[in-house]
Amino acid sequence: MSRLRSEEDFLDLIARHFPESHPHVILGRGDDCALLRCPAEICLTTDLFLEDRHFRRAYFEPEDIGRKSLAVNVSDVLGMGARPLGFSLCLTAPTDIEAEWWERLFAGMGEIAALHGLPLVGGDLSAGDGVGLALTVWGEPWPGGEFKRRGKTRPGDALFVVGPVGLARAGLLALEEKGRAAMADFPSATAWHLCPTLFPSASELLAREPEVRGLMDVSDGLAQDVPRFLAPGQGAALAIAGCDLHPETVAKAQAAGQPPSLFAALGGEDYALLGAAPTPLVAELSARLPGLCRIGAVTDKPGLTLDGTPLGGGFDHFRED
Amino acid sequence: MSRLRSEEDFLDLIARHFPESHPHVILGRGDDCALLRCPAEICLTTDLFLEDRHFRRAYFEPEDIGRKSLAVNVSDVLGMGARPLGFSLCLTAPTDIEAEWWERLFAGMGEIAALHGLPLVGGDLSAGDGVGLALTVWGEPWPGGEFKRRGKTRPGDALFVVGPVGLARAGLLALEEKGRAAMADFPSATAWHLCPTLFPSASELLAREPEVRGLMDVSDGLAQDVPRFLAPGQGAALAIAGCDLHPETVAKAQAAGQPPSLFAALGGEDYALLGAAPTPLVAELSARLPGLCRIGAVTDKPGLTLDGTPLGGGFDHFRED
Repeated sequence: MSRLRSEEDFLDLIARHFPESHPHVILGRGDDCALLRCPAEICLTTDLFLEDRHFRRAYFEPEDIGRKSLAVNVSDVLGMGARPLGFSLCLTAPTDIEAEWWERLFAGMGEIAALHGLPLVGGDLSAGDGVGLALTVWGEPWPGGEFKRRGKTRPGDALFVVGPVGLARAGLLALEEKGRAAMADFPSATAWHLCPTLFPSASELLAREPEVRGLMDVSDGLAQDVPRFLAPGQGAALAIAGCDLHPETVAKAQAAGQPPSLFAALGGEDYALLGAAPTPLVAELSARLPGLCRIGAVTDKPGLTLDGTPLGGGFDHFRED
Repeated sequence: MSRLRSEEDFLDLIARHFPESHPHVILGRGDDCALLRCPAEICLTTDLFLEDRHFRRAYFEPEDIGRKSLAVNVSDVLGMGARPLGFSLCLTAPTDIEAEWWERLFAGMGEIAALHGLPLVGGDLSAGDGVGLALTVWGEPWPGGEFKRRGKTRPGDALFVVGPVGLARAGLLALEEKGRAAMADFPSATAWHLCPTLFPSASELLAREPEVRGLMDVSDGLAQDVPRFLAPGQGAALAIAGCDLHPETVAKAQAAGQPPSLFAALGGEDYALLGAAPTPLVAELSARLPGLCRIGAVTDKPGLTLDGTPLGGGFDHFRED
């Protein structure tokens, strides 16, 4: 087993996993900046993915880290109703990690890059105490589509999600309890936490519907993210019991002593798409998009209810209570 | 003294220091992505700025950290012969730092953003063991200018720099020895290390000269960066004695027992501009650009000499020797 001994070793590894030739890229890695061909409007997002904050090496294999670090950023682009175009990477690397481990991390990241056709156009690298990744991803409108923002909902709109809310939370709890041994009993939930499956086709289809008022990436749980999605002064009446919650989500909710709907609504790291549209359109869309589920309606007063009961909460890295 | 207790507190602080209204920004912070109006081609760069790797809190005031973290990225854009357009920020924050300290960091970063007219369009935030920043900055060609790449030099071209090479290295040594007390004896050198002055006007002027073959941001010292700047198969004969090295650089070189030219060429964190052009043009440019200094010529064989002596070296975060 050997270690990567220089920046050059890292760059060689990156060169093997990330081809640079791409219609979007005029000049790739190796200069002060990348040079990119751009559409008239782009969307851009950046996310941290840090050891012991966002993942644990105890149960994340390096491939999982590589995959998820890119997927969570791509999910933000899909949540704008947009197609991802490219990404850059900042990496901190403890010097005691073997070369093979990095090889596997970049292989995982390369899988997600290839799946979405994304060039890695540049980055920065430093020794550091923990494995840390900061990715920036940008995208363009889907052909024939338009960017979908938050804050455009209207009272009476139906709210919907695409993606299994609560499943990643079930996976996190299982992994925290038993590490990768939990994968035997909770294969779907652990897999979703280790790297969510994204919904580019749904993003594309929804971006082309002018009556879809907005889209959003659900990453902190519906309870926290729905209020961020609504136009000012609005609230929502949620009811997700009809969403065919995954059996592993139901099992973990019961083990936690929480109603499954509440467990799923608190969620976190779902990386589902949340959208709003007139009710008849949502009914029609659910026929065309398997996995789309109506989760309630927009109300004309602030406040969130779940099955009629007021709902609070959410996750904040800095809250001390 | 109080601490920032939530992400909201950070976002409020950021809102105070970074206005969002900007012709480049369609939609700023607060959605899954920012939406940006873009020219046909952009350049993009990303850099880490990490506690105890790139700065020490022992002698960097929070304003310095804020200023330098953005300046080093802007420098990469200027090094492409480009005008910066906007930036995003990932931040890791120990939870035991006072709110006032963050206020000062964002005030420093806001100064540099205002100086270059840059909107902060988005970011991410996490608790972390050390203060860590990962910034992404992008830019567009200066009006009437063109991007300037590496690797376009021709044998016989004159090489030049804009910026005081070696000065930041002198400042780093002084700060490492005596902390901020070193600012009394080495005011210019310590100031340059704490936050380099950039050269946007020189970048603009040079980007408009078709005969300027390329530009580059010198961040690892001339000895390491000149070979990266040259076209394959080329070398350079450097002679920087004529560059009026700063008296503080000369003093620190002598204290280190190194010829000042060598000390300056090894440099590091100069954030100077390095360029190449035909000799007559360089003579003309040095009249128009105070601070521009011819530092040698491109040769048709690999290898670097300084005042006739072969030169190696450079800084690599991972090299163990």
